[in-house]
Amino acid sequence: MIVESKTVRFESLPLDCGATLAPVDVAYETYGRLNEARSNAILIAHALTGDAHAAGVSKVDGKPGWWDSMIGKGKAFDTDKYFMICANVLGGCRGATGPGSVNPATGAPYATSFPGITIPDMVRLQKLLIDHLGIERLLSVSGGSMGGMQALEWAASYPGVVVSAIPIATTARHSAQQIAFNEVGRQAIMADPDWNEGNYYDSKPPARGLAVARMVGHITYMSDESMREKFGRRLRDKAKFGFDFSVDFEVESYLRYRGNQFVGRFDANSYLYITKAMDYFDLSDGSGSLAAAFGKGSTRYLVISFTSDWLYPSYQSLDIVQALRGMNRDVAYCELPSNYGHDAFLVDVGEQTEVVRGFLASTFKARS
Amino acid sequence: MIVESKTVRFESLPLDCGATLAPVDVAYETYGRLNEARSNAILIAHALTGDAHAAGVSKVDGKPGWWDSMIGKGKAFDTDKYFMICANVLGGCRGATGPGSVNPATGAPYATSFPGITIPDMVRLQKLLIDHLGIERLLSVSGGSMGGMQALEWAASYPGVVVSAIPIATTARHSAQQIAFNEVGRQAIMADPDWNEGNYYDSKPPARGLAVARMVGHITYMSDESMREKFGRRLRDKAKFGFDFSVDFEVESYLRYRGNQFVGRFDANSYLYITKAMDYFDLSDGSGSLAAAFGKGSTRYLVISFTSDWLYPSYQSLDIVQALRGMNRDVAYCELPSNYGHDAFLVDVGEQTEVVRGFLASTFKARS
Repeated sequence: MIVESKTVRFESLPLDCGATLAPVDVAYETYGRLNEARSNAILIAHALTGDAHAAGVSKVDGKPGWWDSMIGKGKAFDTDKYFMICANVLGGCRGATGPGSVNPATGAPYATSFPGITIPDMVRLQKLLIDHLGIERLLSVSGGSMGGMQALEWAASYPGVVVSAIPIATTARHSAQQIAFNEVGRQAIMADPDWNEGNYYDSKPPARGLAVARMVGHITYMSDESMREKFGRRLRDKAKFGFDFSVDFEVESYLRYRGNQFVGRFDANSYLYITKAMDYFDLSDGSGSLAAAFGKGSTRYLVISFTSDWLYPSYQSLDIVQALRGMNRDVAYCELPSNYGHDAFLVDVGEQTEVVRGFLASTFKARS
Repeated sequence: MIVESKTVRFESLPLDCGATLAPVDVAYETYGRLNEARSNAILIAHALTGDAHAAGVSKVDGKPGWWDSMIGKGKAFDTDKYFMICANVLGGCRGATGPGSVNPATGAPYATSFPGITIPDMVRLQKLLIDHLGIERLLSVSGGSMGGMQALEWAASYPGVVVSAIPIATTARHSAQQIAFNEVGRQAIMADPDWNEGNYYDSKPPARGLAVARMVGHITYMSDESMREKFGRRLRDKAKFGFDFSVDFEVESYLRYRGNQFVGRFDANSYLYITKAMDYFDLSDGSGSLAAAFGKGSTRYLVISFTSDWLYPSYQSLDIVQALRGMNRDVAYCELPSNYGHDAFLVDVGEQTEVVRGFLASTFKARS
């Protein structure tokens, strides 16, 4: 499946902060076919560093999509049955308007003059896209991590539109620890002199800071056990006492590689804005109670978490499930066994495929 | 108890890497009195960023020692009964020779020409100090985190000297995840242009990088739950959508404060060298089997871990206990309930005090 992103421009987007972005671009991809009843559309929302290229093989660079294991012919999100849509999030750097985009008022990149954005803002832009595609109801909205936050927000903001939601490995609000990990990433970026208060678009980006931020991320995405299985304490080709602060252990080599690789494809200011949006996200709107968010509409929920995910631990999914049950909502919950930590939703998709497939089939059948 | 550090200089110290440091200084403090039989001496080993000032109030700056909750009159390490010793570790920056010390051969700081050091090297320097103090046997060696590694190494290197060892919240070897967290700290330091390949002693230190390293550390020292209790999602005095990448959440404020505070008292190159020593430490000497290390001597062990410590999880203490039991060694193990994560050994000392007090009393009695 060779795929290509498209981009659509909207005149303006009002934001939670009171500002209005105008215009706003959004890159998206679709897979499968919209049926005549327009009843088989599913929106996939990506995580912090994802993009619109969720499935298939990119026509541009030949790379597979970030959730190609889940989306395609015969897969969990079966493109023979469903019309799949994935878009880059607002504030991103992969085809959506973000801090690296040119501000038409100045002719220069927004940089840190870009307004603060929220998860509801991201969802509002996706709603414009769905409208543009002529889709009135979404059979499902799904995503892992920050994608799961968007799925939850979709159902809360547009209860009449969202038939079902599948939030995976996510939370209704970040804990202090989750905020803290994001803050370390931000501090690493802002500590890099090349960040230059966000004004680096005509010089070199804060590559070292962004790489460190990514390294912190990768540790939190893996589990203690999956790191042990993948790297153990293996040394690279070095004498035992030859340490010189270059690479000694294989895990160091991996982190540096992934950190440096990331710099080529991601904008540091987008990292700052999107992590802030995640940290501010609170489906309970500060009240601590999720009842209001879950009180509206008839959206069905499938909530999934993974046993070894310590970044988005199962108790956060259970909070969501408990609140939904308290509102007499239709909710299924699966805690799937996996050693892969938070990455499980991307890489350990065997059982996830089964539960998603079954849930979508019953949802689609109930609707038809 | 007003205390003051002393410093002693030794002619030379042979290192595992084959190099010899000459001369070598070590700052230390003592609390309580050595009895006539010289049988009540206990060595305390500090963690990554600790120093010789373990207890009492510093004559210099009025600050309490880092383990003042555990060491003193009537405390776990009762200075009415025991003669306590604590020294800055080799490679440190608080009175022991380290990368910031002047290399007599050049008249300039060693910086990264400082040789690679190991946990056994640190212990070898402590042995010189113990000899200097006229102590032939240590009633106990104890410490948390890296201090626990030193306690384990003492018993392995000098089985005839160490009557008992109390390794707390520690491991016989770092996991890939522990190495990874240290590596992120090192990368943050080395990414700071002020690090300048380690040559910053006549200009400004890599303060931003070191602060980021410290922030990562602090997250790993706390538990998800203790962070939630301490900070929750509380915002500082800000409007909800006023985020500008300064401080929004209280947890961010705390991390930045602790990060910046650390810069004033710690040397970045010491951070690099000491974390490498921790990462290379492997009591099994690469074999994976701890039997050889625990086969010698008659040292009694009290191994302590904490339920919420995810940086040095209990399974690592259990590995030690299992190996000791396999060698028919005298070992007691306590997993203490605490919400404080790895910090528990420093801040949640109620039950820790009871078990340490009892263990020391029985050890002292058996010896007398």
